[in-house]
Amino acid sequence: MVDIISKKKEGSALSREEIIYFIEGYTNGNIPDYQVSALLMAIFFQKMNKEETVYLTEAMMNSGDLIDLSDIEGIKVDKHSTGGVGDKTSIALGAMVAACGVPVAKMSGRGLGHTGGTIDKLEAISGFTVDMTKEQFVNNVNEIKLAIGGQTGDLAPADKKLYALRDVTATVDNISLIASSIMSKKLASGANAIVLDVKTGSGAFMKDLDDSFDLAQEMVQIGCQMNRETVALITDMDQPLGCAVGNSLEVKEAIETLKGNGPKDFTNLCIHLGAYMLLLAERVATVEDGKKMIQDTIDQGTALMVFEKFIQAQGGDPKVIYNTDLLSKSKGIYRLQALEQGYIHKIQADIIGMSALVLGAGRETKESVIDLSVGIVLNKKIGDFVEKGDILAYVHYNDESKKEDALQLLENAYEINEIKVQQRQLIFGIVSKEGMKRL
Amino acid sequence: MVDIISKKKEGSALSREEIIYFIEGYTNGNIPDYQVSALLMAIFFQKMNKEETVYLTEAMMNSGDLIDLSDIEGIKVDKHSTGGVGDKTSIALGAMVAACGVPVAKMSGRGLGHTGGTIDKLEAISGFTVDMTKEQFVNNVNEIKLAIGGQTGDLAPADKKLYALRDVTATVDNISLIASSIMSKKLASGANAIVLDVKTGSGAFMKDLDDSFDLAQEMVQIGCQMNRETVALITDMDQPLGCAVGNSLEVKEAIETLKGNGPKDFTNLCIHLGAYMLLLAERVATVEDGKKMIQDTIDQGTALMVFEKFIQAQGGDPKVIYNTDLLSKSKGIYRLQALEQGYIHKIQADIIGMSALVLGAGRETKESVIDLSVGIVLNKKIGDFVEKGDILAYVHYNDESKKEDALQLLENAYEINEIKVQQRQLIFGIVSKEGMKRL
Repeated sequence: MVDIISKKKEGSALSREEIIYFIEGYTNGNIPDYQVSALLMAIFFQKMNKEETVYLTEAMMNSGDLIDLSDIEGIKVDKHSTGGVGDKTSIALGAMVAACGVPVAKMSGRGLGHTGGTIDKLEAISGFTVDMTKEQFVNNVNEIKLAIGGQTGDLAPADKKLYALRDVTATVDNISLIASSIMSKKLASGANAIVLDVKTGSGAFMKDLDDSFDLAQEMVQIGCQMNRETVALITDMDQPLGCAVGNSLEVKEAIETLKGNGPKDFTNLCIHLGAYMLLLAERVATVEDGKKMIQDTIDQGTALMVFEKFIQAQGGDPKVIYNTDLLSKSKGIYRLQALEQGYIHKIQADIIGMSALVLGAGRETKESVIDLSVGIVLNKKIGDFVEKGDILAYVHYNDESKKEDALQLLENAYEINEIKVQQRQLIFGIVSKEGMKRL
Repeated sequence: MVDIISKKKEGSALSREEIIYFIEGYTNGNIPDYQVSALLMAIFFQKMNKEETVYLTEAMMNSGDLIDLSDIEGIKVDKHSTGGVGDKTSIALGAMVAACGVPVAKMSGRGLGHTGGTIDKLEAISGFTVDMTKEQFVNNVNEIKLAIGGQTGDLAPADKKLYALRDVTATVDNISLIASSIMSKKLASGANAIVLDVKTGSGAFMKDLDDSFDLAQEMVQIGCQMNRETVALITDMDQPLGCAVGNSLEVKEAIETLKGNGPKDFTNLCIHLGAYMLLLAERVATVEDGKKMIQDTIDQGTALMVFEKFIQAQGGDPKVIYNTDLLSKSKGIYRLQALEQGYIHKIQADIIGMSALVLGAGRETKESVIDLSVGIVLNKKIGDFVEKGDILAYVHYNDESKKEDALQLLENAYEINEIKVQQRQLIFGIVSKEGMKRL
């Protein structure tokens, strides 16, 4: 292992065998943390080339269970977002794509963050569960075309261990390490093709647009090298996606979106991501056809119907679809008003996310209990004009002092002035095996 | 700690407080190995500036006991060598400097290596011991001007821990880390001034001459910043120092040198190093005066007299001085002959050292038992002309198969050809607070 560290330190590329040796040894505990952290820091400085990054991804993928989705008919396309504030895409998009006849077999997580993960959010629907046998899961996908399960088995344990170490050794910020971390889990999840939603902006992991493109390219390259067709969209996360941030609130917004009443940006994102999923699933021949087909699932109510069946199949109360008041609600709603008139230039996603966390919508530690009912609903977005006193956002809270803490944060989230400003661009570009396109 | 790692990773200088925090935390176990190894690798890439290096040295020095030599009269000058093959300097030089009336209170180690440390070597003299109370040690220095003790107390434990970690994480080769490691121990040892013998060449830690100068400059700077006058000589370690490599054999050579019969290079090195020790001890006004005074201790036999008293005071048999056959001797002596005639261009010190280790003269692990009698005595040195069949070296051995292993190594130690070659330069330069002088 010392030789491997030295080699990377001196700027040479590691071989497939060396990378497998290090990942296997680290996973089974034969190589200690302190050698791996030294190697990670050397990787930060000397970078990894494309081959090394693929080898690393492959080795981490192979470090644990590999999910077999072959019992599910058709081409399975997975969608993965690098994460952001108000990202309820999986909930709405799954139903749209499924309504087009393409199987959506999604494994989701809980994790830490501003709000819960997809599963936490869906649990805001009374009775909903991801507790299923593998057989039930497969049957549900084959019948309804949509199922969302908890992560079963031990997917890419090397990545878990490595990520935890990177977190405490200041070695998170390397494109190759980030890309291989994401892709190792995705590849172990068994989908045939992958659509990536790479977020960019203040509320994203990647704040910088060029970095986001780099990450997208790296991940698409890994996917294609590993024989999974992969496409990445680089999308805005400088302001929250849609309006709702919080678990119940996001489920409600997802349902409204399926009914055609969703926020424009969120609906638009679902249509774009959905179109690429249909394309990779060979359901349509062009992205334009895909967009139209997804739009139809909204207009014709077929996505909502799939969603109803999906909720029912996983134990949830389907009445929620027609009465979103059945979702858990907070005790109080505070109206955040504009203190001056003007155009909204900024709604900083990271601060909105922190406010939601402070209200109780997310987990600070693994042990935190999520308050499903709290959160923030934006009433205005970037580009909107507000008069003094207009409502900027609704703060849904259960605890007076947490509300005060959240309001203090929110003071700094907005930038309003007299200069007219355009709405923010939603999609900045697309990366596929054909190359990169900036929009 | 993550912030400290990040800061260094991004190329900023760490503050004194940050360095103290990290060294204290690491020493007491609050900061784990894996964070420290990541920081070390970041230091390798981003370097440390002079201030940081001094702070690190100071923090490591303060991590353990500080030896108080104030009961010893006069200015205490310590000599430290970065280590090499056949380096018996401490044994002879101590007596020479002491004979000039300058106190030599030396703490020595055992350690790993091609041969034993200074204490191991001296134990080749029947009865010799470093077991003394601190009072005895101080009394001996005050009376005889020379005592050699074992390292007592817990000197710079942070350095011990850090060095062990660097060794297994490929982070040894950074000048600041090397310099602070050496100097933290020296500074904790309580001398008022320090003469450094920085070895350069195949048998040295620093193989490259420029690197050796860099290391010397870094260490002199640290010493001066910490208010200890420090001078470094950069000296040859491309071939072994003197002729003898092995414990008994080196003691014998040291005694012969005190009598004026020593190898030219070794005698010369003692005179140079001794001159600087006398200068720093304010015993002489110029280096030239110092050289003359040291030479006098040989010519007039005063150094040998001090050595005799010193051996006696520490329990050893002083008769050895007049009869070096009293030192332990090997069973066999093999004569290594030249296979061709020509001038000797190379006697690779590292290979000679390995051969001595193979014969049993050194420790491979902490548990190894040293064979004091074995080793190698060179009969020719670089620049000498040999006929085919001339004896190149005497291999002193106790074990036939170890001898064979050593001979196999020795085959590759020599380079002999018809082209005339000069003797190697012994001293390449001097670094002091006044600057650097290449010779």
